[in-house]
Amino acid sequence: MSDGKTGLQLRSLIKASGELEISLVDVPTPEPADDEVVVRVEAAPINPSDLGLLIGAADMSTAKASGTKQAPVITATVPQAAMRAMGARLDQSLPVGNEGAGVVVKTGSSDAAKALMGKTVAMIGGAMYSQYRTMKVRDCQPLPEGTTAAEGASWFVNPLTALGMTETMRREGHKALVHTAAASNLGQMLNKICIADGIPLVNIVRSKQQAEILKKIGAKYVVDSSVPSFFDDLTNALVETGATIAFDAIGGGKLAGDILNCMEIAINKTAKEYSRYGSSVHKQVYIYGALDVRPIELPRGFGMAWGVGGWLLTPFLQKIGPADIGRLRQRVVNELKTTFASHYTKVVSLSEALDPANVAAYAKRATGEKFLINPNKS
Amino acid sequence: MSDGKTGLQLRSLIKASGELEISLVDVPTPEPADDEVVVRVEAAPINPSDLGLLIGAADMSTAKASGTKQAPVITATVPQAAMRAMGARLDQSLPVGNEGAGVVVKTGSSDAAKALMGKTVAMIGGAMYSQYRTMKVRDCQPLPEGTTAAEGASWFVNPLTALGMTETMRREGHKALVHTAAASNLGQMLNKICIADGIPLVNIVRSKQQAEILKKIGAKYVVDSSVPSFFDDLTNALVETGATIAFDAIGGGKLAGDILNCMEIAINKTAKEYSRYGSSVHKQVYIYGALDVRPIELPRGFGMAWGVGGWLLTPFLQKIGPADIGRLRQRVVNELKTTFASHYTKVVSLSEALDPANVAAYAKRATGEKFLINPNKS
Repeated sequence: MSDGKTGLQLRSLIKASGELEISLVDVPTPEPADDEVVVRVEAAPINPSDLGLLIGAADMSTAKASGTKQAPVITATVPQAAMRAMGARLDQSLPVGNEGAGVVVKTGSSDAAKALMGKTVAMIGGAMYSQYRTMKVRDCQPLPEGTTAAEGASWFVNPLTALGMTETMRREGHKALVHTAAASNLGQMLNKICIADGIPLVNIVRSKQQAEILKKIGAKYVVDSSVPSFFDDLTNALVETGATIAFDAIGGGKLAGDILNCMEIAINKTAKEYSRYGSSVHKQVYIYGALDVRPIELPRGFGMAWGVGGWLLTPFLQKIGPADIGRLRQRVVNELKTTFASHYTKVVSLSEALDPANVAAYAKRATGEKFLINPNKS
Repeated sequence: MSDGKTGLQLRSLIKASGELEISLVDVPTPEPADDEVVVRVEAAPINPSDLGLLIGAADMSTAKASGTKQAPVITATVPQAAMRAMGARLDQSLPVGNEGAGVVVKTGSSDAAKALMGKTVAMIGGAMYSQYRTMKVRDCQPLPEGTTAAEGASWFVNPLTALGMTETMRREGHKALVHTAAASNLGQMLNKICIADGIPLVNIVRSKQQAEILKKIGAKYVVDSSVPSFFDDLTNALVETGATIAFDAIGGGKLAGDILNCMEIAINKTAKEYSRYGSSVHKQVYIYGALDVRPIELPRGFGMAWGVGGWLLTPFLQKIGPADIGRLRQRVVNELKTTFASHYTKVVSLSEALDPANVAAYAKRATGEKFLINPNKS
């Protein structure tokens, strides 16, 4: 372990030539200002949202390892067609990792900074795949006694996204919700929140195995899009729950349109009179992921009261403001070992994160597969 | 002309057997209550929004005429696949016609009602393809001296839809807008509004002829989706105008997605730094028509800050409330002979509206073709 004056940091670079290069560089740790602390990062998850920056549009079936054991390098080819979308990041060596947790090893001179010395804190703010991070006190969340960095590392992205879904549901006047790719880590959290808060949740999964995972944790409505009765199963669940808002991680293909059409049928089952424009109940699908990169296809049978749109955590938090953000963060910290517990397939060091077998595993974005990086793993 | 105690009314009926029947029935004119008046309807346009109710999902290539000259009947077949969407209106004989204008021929006892005697008024409220309509005073808009019923008949649907677009643009924080099927009657009104109000408007048309129509009335940005350079032409117009909201009457196919993708490219041409989620500028397409009934297809290259949704006049008016509705209505009345002037291809009586040649013409929904019904035409 280093003395903290410098530390390894993972970098992702896409060259104008069309090559992705992932490597480790040794960077100096900035001295903390009065209101800052230096955190030795001990845990940072690889979320789907990190993979966008880490591997970009590269075709990971072309990945090759080079370099040394201490300084490994992964390279891969970015398909020509995808290069235009990479335009704004070309030839910039970018640090990666949205969230993480670790121990405060040095502080600035303010009382608030000094109070954190030796404490385990969770962080948000990028570049978490680094051995050391100098952070503002306000961007550190002290974890309760007895909570490890690994337990606190995934405190922000998934928990606040899941809470953001139920918050959005309430703010936009819906009383139940639909979630796709529902057996994911995030999907399981959402089930726990909805069970605790009494919110009817329709889970859409893509296999019998995924349905079993959710049934085991108490999910009441689980529909499997891989069976022939999917359309009817979904409609029935929508009639029972009255869900008129969905959060969709899939994005491409017909799923978003199927959800809207089933919502419309479910609403019209109880409609009293003919409306030439379809039901007047607003039906909304928010797309927050892109597990399927094909075009979104919407066959129109859902009237005129509908919306499909992108949903991201950061703009949502900007909209609700500091007081509500504080309320949501506090709930996460209180329930880190229950509602918001994350499960990892594997814990790796920074150099192990560049091992070709590990890259192949996390680049698949498979449901249930989740890596945790410990940058200070010896 | 009848004495007003009864009058002809156009009716549309879709039978459970899958047959559309359009006919004329003689209905009694309700006596006006204190706050009501009887209007002899002299002009009512056939808008695209009326055709949805008038012909529903019927296949008008199967249309047949029967009945007598005084009591003509049109029948046509509704394709089996479309019958589910007609469920809520089956076997109900429905009156048609959203808006119209005419002369007050009888009034209730209130002062407000009596003040309208003999006046030419515009109306909104359905069943306008009738010789007489008994209306509440508040649903009648007196027209200025010298304005005919024909000039005032299209006072509501198109003018308020066009004004609703610029109002929505402002309320949602955009500074310029895009409109498709832009050479329509509505599209021409929108150009006049935008020129008067200094709003940059990008017009998307489907032919050179349509582009010429708009150029002649002073449109600055007109792009033709039928030429190979469409994508670049649209992007350039979006760079120049900064438009980030579109109103689309087409609905099906790739146009909405093309607009979002061109907006994203236009925004990124001036972007300063890489954002892994695409630009953070919200891009919105509102679909208010269905000239193309294929599925909406959205190839995703427009980041996460986007929305596509339905837009309808009535919910928009409910949202803005009576004071703003009054302001918009007053503007329409003031500018009926200029900004909001409508042009008609043909003026027909109720029985002529059931002439097969006329039905074939208005059922085509062709840009530039617009019929006006005068139910009291002799």
